[in-house]
Amino acid sequence: MTIMENPVRNGVDTATLFATLDAVRQAPAAAQFQFRARNHWISGTHSRTTIEDFFGVGEERAHEAPTVHDVDHPKVLVGGDHAPTPVEYLLHALAGCLTAGLVNIAAARGIELTEVSSTVAGDIDLNGILGLDPTVRNGFSGITVSFRVKGDAPAEELAGLVERSRARSAVYDSLVNPVPVTIEVEAG
Amino acid sequence: MTIMENPVRNGVDTATLFATLDAVRQAPAAAQFQFRARNHWISGTHSRTTIEDFFGVGEERAHEAPTVHDVDHPKVLVGGDHAPTPVEYLLHALAGCLTAGLVNIAAARGIELTEVSSTVAGDIDLNGILGLDPTVRNGFSGITVSFRVKGDAPAEELAGLVERSRARSAVYDSLVNPVPVTIEVEAG
Repeated sequence: MTIMENPVRNGVDTATLFATLDAVRQAPAAAQFQFRARNHWISGTHSRTTIEDFFGVGEERAHEAPTVHDVDHPKVLVGGDHAPTPVEYLLHALAGCLTAGLVNIAAARGIELTEVSSTVAGDIDLNGILGLDPTVRNGFSGITVSFRVKGDAPAEELAGLVERSRARSAVYDSLVNPVPVTIEVEAG
Repeated sequence: MTIMENPVRNGVDTATLFATLDAVRQAPAAAQFQFRARNHWISGTHSRTTIEDFFGVGEERAHEAPTVHDVDHPKVLVGGDHAPTPVEYLLHALAGCLTAGLVNIAAARGIELTEVSSTVAGDIDLNGILGLDPTVRNGFSGITVSFRVKGDAPAEELAGLVERSRARSAVYDSLVNPVPVTIEVEAG
């Protein structure tokens, strides 16, 4: 009888995680993914996105269930406030990406986490998007992420999880470095 | 008796929109906003964000109701698939931002819209975040937004709404141009 270490840590199945890494190392094309969001306008600044299908590991796939996400502007910005703003979803995406990475990395390093929480704050001068000051950019002037991480490792190792997650984060990279965006229109 | 044009078009209260622009023109500091997302880890790659408070027009504010947004990785990426991925929320943010701007601009230009829908597709090579190929970036290699816009204006004017919205979009700018991101950690 062999006593094996439990491969599930922090809710991460580390055996499957390492097996997946090995599989992609053998077949790098499996890592080509396309994610999609389908949005339709409702009224005013309020619209609704469905997220369901994606491409990955060589074939079309779908989430176990489609999900629906509303987006709007607050009333102080002449919206209906039916849902968060677009820029708040961007902050949410950043928090979710850094947190998922951090937890995977902790699992791989044998660290048991007891808490990971974060506040993401993004500063924006709306004189840009309102067209009132051409020297002001449209997007965030800066974003600050404040993490609180607890677990069974020294503080510096816990902080190292955040740093490693940052260095491997899809959303962090998509914000701090330029992403080419193409827009096509079928009108009329 | 004066017959006034209805100031609500496409669900946008254009009178309030123009009054808001005038107010910010007179007091530019009102346009300094900070948006926030508060996230906590649940298990594995699954975490949950609450969006509620923000700062704007000189004071602390809150949405009419807080909203809660889960985020996860799909099973093919060793997640629980309880919710969309972080990068899908980023695509959703882009769709919502471009659509809200487009509708506001149409209202200001006197164009009645009957349909605005879009599909946002983002390509990503996960060899980057998996650490398997140092030449591959972590984030999206490219994003394509495909709009369908219908309304009571010629096709070129409808297409012009998309172009103007792109030129004034907070999320578009935050993706195509670098945003400084600072990460702080309280660990242990």
